[in-house]
Amino acid sequence: MTRKDIDRCANGRSVEHIIIERVTPQVDGGRYPAKRIIGDMVSVGADLIKDGHDVLAARTLYKGPGYTDWCRAPLQFDFDSDRWYSEFCVDRLGKWSFTIEAWTDATATWRRGLEKNVAAGLDVGSDLLDGARLVRGVAEDAPFGAARESLLRSATLLEGGRDVSIEKRIQCAFDEELLALMEEHYRPPDLTRLGHEIPIIVDRKRAQFGAWYELFPRSQVAPEEVATPNAHPRHATFDDAAAGLPRIASLGFDVVYLAPIHPIGRTHRKGRNNSLTSDPDDVGSPWAIGNENGGHTAIEPALGSIADFDRFVETARDLGMEVALDYALQCSPDHPWVKEHPDWFFIRADGSIKYAENPPKKYQDIYPLNFWCADREGLWQACRDVLLFWVAHGVKTFRVDNPHTKPPAFWEWVIDDIRRAHPDVIFFAEAFTRPKRMKSLAKLGFTMSYTYFTWKNGAVELREYFEELTRSPVVEYFRGNLFTNTPDILNEYLVKGGRPAFRVRLLLAGTLLPSYGIYSGFELCENVPAGEGSEEYLDSEKYQILPRDYCAPGNINDDIERLNAVRREHRVLQRYDNLSFHTSENPSILFYRKAARVPIVQWLGEAPAAIPLKIATQSAADAARVGEGESAGDILVAVNTDPANVQEGFVHVPIEDMGIGHHEPYLVHDLLTGASHTWRGARNYVRLDPAEQPGHLFLVERGVRSSRVMQSPEND
Amino acid sequence: MTRKDIDRCANGRSVEHIIIERVTPQVDGGRYPAKRIIGDMVSVGADLIKDGHDVLAARTLYKGPGYTDWCRAPLQFDFDSDRWYSEFCVDRLGKWSFTIEAWTDATATWRRGLEKNVAAGLDVGSDLLDGARLVRGVAEDAPFGAARESLLRSATLLEGGRDVSIEKRIQCAFDEELLALMEEHYRPPDLTRLGHEIPIIVDRKRAQFGAWYELFPRSQVAPEEVATPNAHPRHATFDDAAAGLPRIASLGFDVVYLAPIHPIGRTHRKGRNNSLTSDPDDVGSPWAIGNENGGHTAIEPALGSIADFDRFVETARDLGMEVALDYALQCSPDHPWVKEHPDWFFIRADGSIKYAENPPKKYQDIYPLNFWCADREGLWQACRDVLLFWVAHGVKTFRVDNPHTKPPAFWEWVIDDIRRAHPDVIFFAEAFTRPKRMKSLAKLGFTMSYTYFTWKNGAVELREYFEELTRSPVVEYFRGNLFTNTPDILNEYLVKGGRPAFRVRLLLAGTLLPSYGIYSGFELCENVPAGEGSEEYLDSEKYQILPRDYCAPGNINDDIERLNAVRREHRVLQRYDNLSFHTSENPSILFYRKAARVPIVQWLGEAPAAIPLKIATQSAADAARVGEGESAGDILVAVNTDPANVQEGFVHVPIEDMGIGHHEPYLVHDLLTGASHTWRGARNYVRLDPAEQPGHLFLVERGVRSSRVMQSPEND
Repeated sequence: MTRKDIDRCANGRSVEHIIIERVTPQVDGGRYPAKRIIGDMVSVGADLIKDGHDVLAARTLYKGPGYTDWCRAPLQFDFDSDRWYSEFCVDRLGKWSFTIEAWTDATATWRRGLEKNVAAGLDVGSDLLDGARLVRGVAEDAPFGAARESLLRSATLLEGGRDVSIEKRIQCAFDEELLALMEEHYRPPDLTRLGHEIPIIVDRKRAQFGAWYELFPRSQVAPEEVATPNAHPRHATFDDAAAGLPRIASLGFDVVYLAPIHPIGRTHRKGRNNSLTSDPDDVGSPWAIGNENGGHTAIEPALGSIADFDRFVETARDLGMEVALDYALQCSPDHPWVKEHPDWFFIRADGSIKYAENPPKKYQDIYPLNFWCADREGLWQACRDVLLFWVAHGVKTFRVDNPHTKPPAFWEWVIDDIRRAHPDVIFFAEAFTRPKRMKSLAKLGFTMSYTYFTWKNGAVELREYFEELTRSPVVEYFRGNLFTNTPDILNEYLVKGGRPAFRVRLLLAGTLLPSYGIYSGFELCENVPAGEGSEEYLDSEKYQILPRDYCAPGNINDDIERLNAVRREHRVLQRYDNLSFHTSENPSILFYRKAARVPIVQWLGEAPAAIPLKIATQSAADAARVGEGESAGDILVAVNTDPANVQEGFVHVPIEDMGIGHHEPYLVHDLLTGASHTWRGARNYVRLDPAEQPGHLFLVERGVRSSRVMQSPEND
Repeated sequence: MTRKDIDRCANGRSVEHIIIERVTPQVDGGRYPAKRIIGDMVSVGADLIKDGHDVLAARTLYKGPGYTDWCRAPLQFDFDSDRWYSEFCVDRLGKWSFTIEAWTDATATWRRGLEKNVAAGLDVGSDLLDGARLVRGVAEDAPFGAARESLLRSATLLEGGRDVSIEKRIQCAFDEELLALMEEHYRPPDLTRLGHEIPIIVDRKRAQFGAWYELFPRSQVAPEEVATPNAHPRHATFDDAAAGLPRIASLGFDVVYLAPIHPIGRTHRKGRNNSLTSDPDDVGSPWAIGNENGGHTAIEPALGSIADFDRFVETARDLGMEVALDYALQCSPDHPWVKEHPDWFFIRADGSIKYAENPPKKYQDIYPLNFWCADREGLWQACRDVLLFWVAHGVKTFRVDNPHTKPPAFWEWVIDDIRRAHPDVIFFAEAFTRPKRMKSLAKLGFTMSYTYFTWKNGAVELREYFEELTRSPVVEYFRGNLFTNTPDILNEYLVKGGRPAFRVRLLLAGTLLPSYGIYSGFELCENVPAGEGSEEYLDSEKYQILPRDYCAPGNINDDIERLNAVRREHRVLQRYDNLSFHTSENPSILFYRKAARVPIVQWLGEAPAAIPLKIATQSAADAARVGEGESAGDILVAVNTDPANVQEGFVHVPIEDMGIGHHEPYLVHDLLTGASHTWRGARNYVRLDPAEQPGHLFLVERGVRSSRVMQSPEND
């Protein structure tokens, strides 16, 4: 055995003085970044293990994009959880990283022993000499100057001499200035750094919070044209669509997401209701991208020009909204790439290009791309350049069609590549696939994702699903965006439940998570399926122009407007990690809280790390993450998930978690109706008539004297 | 951007076609080995993620010590858990490793599509041509020979021609021989291997199962000498101790663990009852190692010579037992190393060698070693050579004193170094420290560990603690050995509870985990503490010779003998992962099951992976791990943890887990008393009088016709 052998541990790593483990936040051991929003405090945790009783010290090293060196944040020890914590603020968009350093704090170890021996009345002469040696060693390592001189003086004093009293020497040992100099100049011989750097990705706030509205631009003709039914309605333009934007803005939406706006293929074009044959005047599915007018960077001429599009984007921006485009990486047989780069597709042995299929089903209007073709470089770059083209036209949000049918490696590369130059770009995954694949796409870089929300309609399944999304390690990397419906998904719950069901789903979508969306027509409670048990719409807008009167009777515009206003006003509805469910004695009523203050949970594997409540609730992080909103109160939500019947019963308010005493009255103020009630204790009664109100959205107001509440008229 | 950029993902890794994640078993992402026993089946699990609908295939690659190449075990897909599984047997001691490879099964993907299209009556001409191209490609990669010829013939047949019917071509596509050739010769272009190899350490069975007996050789005088109390008893020799071994063997112990046998320091030698001063005839603590007669490789002359020791080891071996030594890395001031290598210790600024201290306490009879001294290489090798010396004298098990006061890096190195040449060596950590540090030592390489068992005496805390040890990821790397008492730990429960308490603790220790031990005197129910509230024994054997009459009245030798016999007879008591707790309506009664068959649980982070029951219960692994014992029945244990009172009540047998019908009678046969009862259903009554019986140890016998049971007299 050589010295070299002894310098390596069993696993070939170099010898470490201190073990640093269970570091949070990290996703899959640092393989993928954890996600945060700009301005967040990142709460770091770690276990440190060393032999013996020495005092340890540690710090987090962190850096953001453009940082030339590490910043440092000291880690503090929490005795109860036997764990170390620190935090830092992520104040720039992009990729951050952090790691951890630990060492033995020789000064603190020496001073602690000395202090105990002094207190026990023991002879501390040798302790003082040991300290003098330590201080002198640090001084000799320090650069020439005042600090070094001061350290040398302290060492001499600690060493004593004929004229120096023991008291004076002890006093020197505990001098604060000496301590500060030691901390500054001590170079620990056992400094140990975590073997890897842990990535964190920082997004803008819209990555977490926003209300989305999906529309087909070609259907957006003016309301007055809609009055008379027409078998062949006019193809709307971007200017028509822009004229409709003020309505959408007034409803309180943040993002307008457009179905694809590109030229549509002619070969095997689908007719109305997904017919395999089409009439000459059928407009086709906009997801069959590309014809003689161009492909993914072109605009369907009937919609207008790129200048018209730019104007549309500008109009939206002026109204405080942003435009999201669909990114669907597939081609119609008429797409320019088919001629220019047939090698980018799958060429069959018979020489033909392979169309999309899921045997025995065939989708002859679509050619999938062969991402592993010989010219992979050319294809991947072309796909990337499509994004760059639209980014240059002011689009910073892409809803990605079926990402689970394209290689994970492509997504990891292209998202990273785009975000290096444009860290404000948002990628929204439409990955209706198995849970592991859906989650994997989020890990690989997707900013947010569709969810299984449309298929979770009962109170029990809603609770289970949202606990998984918000109270498990998934919360570190997966952000759900709760669409109530899509052009592909009209759930049976809406079909059978009608208008009350639409109001229930709207309320759930807008309060369970901070991001949600509707596909146009939802506000009109459109719910006629293509057939019994089908989730497709009859006369689906995917295959035809569908003008609408958005103010038609039965609309739920008022609900939408009110909900979006409340969401903007109340910060607790804009956070992802503050959802908790609570007992409702009536199983049809779902009862949950969006909390203003929550302990910082650190996810380790499948379970949370010990949570140092003391640290978490007193930390600046907690204050910073909570206290900025216009309203800092908790919100309680009770929703009747049964759209057909009145449901009533008791719900259990988590008054202990909320710091409310057992006999203390508190005001619950319904943000939907303006009504107020004084509650007391945990168990309180609610009654929800789906014909009138789908649920309560209660702002909890504390410290109310009951007398004042009793006297006050109905608040608004 | 260059080709090189596109070949790397965001994180600098090369592009992967398939994501392989959540691989089990692994400890901290493969940083530490998972532990297994020779002959175990290792059950491997992994999630595989790829885009699209192609058929995947995967295999585990594994190798043991001395393997020149990987062995392969195919992974099989379980749809319900969306996870892949395989298993392999570890049939050699030492360090194993495994990794995973996955790829797209192009042949299966093609055949599946073809099959569906054939079934749907579609034209499959192009599918057959695609297949022909695939087969031809594989043929061209194959070596010249029969296989290649056969593949080429198949390709030609699939391509068809004027004389070949479509039926014949389809028949060829589904030919089993073609399939086998394709599987053998296909070289997948997207073959993806997990980026790291995962270690597994394989120990001999004694690492998991054994009954330990701790003694001080110097106290082992013959029983006839013990009869008359003597203030200065004779110092026993190895020959005396060897004469006592048959008694220990007859009690059924497997390991005899000796307190240190080395020369004992004279400077600051401790007197009786840990007195700071000693009489000239005081023998001192054997943990103050070393004097003029030698150090860690020497033997206390009063015990005998190395030849006497060798004979002692041989006697034990002949009795079917092995000898474990204490490995205590510290020195008395008289240890030869102090003179030869003063630099291996901590030298204070005043020139003295630092003795052990925990300010303000001082332990002047002990010098700790400075593991990070300049001559670290020399010191570490010397410590390693101590182990090699005793290994050469037939010792393969070391009980390590206070490992948490020596560097983790030292343990990782020395254990690995020893076990490379001697993979049968067992390291048993006496790490009575905080939980994370105790666990860390197990990860670093300790084969087994002391636990907090002595301080867990109530039913609730026992259940919680043993669920943590056996039903959490800890089970992958930490093996507890349940000592009922040690020379340092006489728990209040034994002090207050007397003989019934000793019997309770014995039963718990011997059944909760497969490894347990007692320190001599336990069988005599010795329980006089050094003082009120002290865990030290009065007249502790650590500081004086303590001869005993091991057959003195009140002994529990019969209990020990019976328990050890039952443990040897029943395999379920020799397994670590088959413990589960069940409801007892009386909170003083602890009720648990040691199961003959358990599902294979794969630990991911803090929670188990989805468990594919179907796979687990049908696997060879399961059969192999269960069915070898002399008895394959489940064992149910009910223990009265209250040694002062009779306790009675109903316990809930997990009949569903055990496959027992609700009305089916079953026999429970008490292995401690021989009594049998017929039980029916889950809820059954027990009554435990601590004066008579500490608990029931029921073997469950199935398939008993109740009539037979009713007629049969008391069994056994």
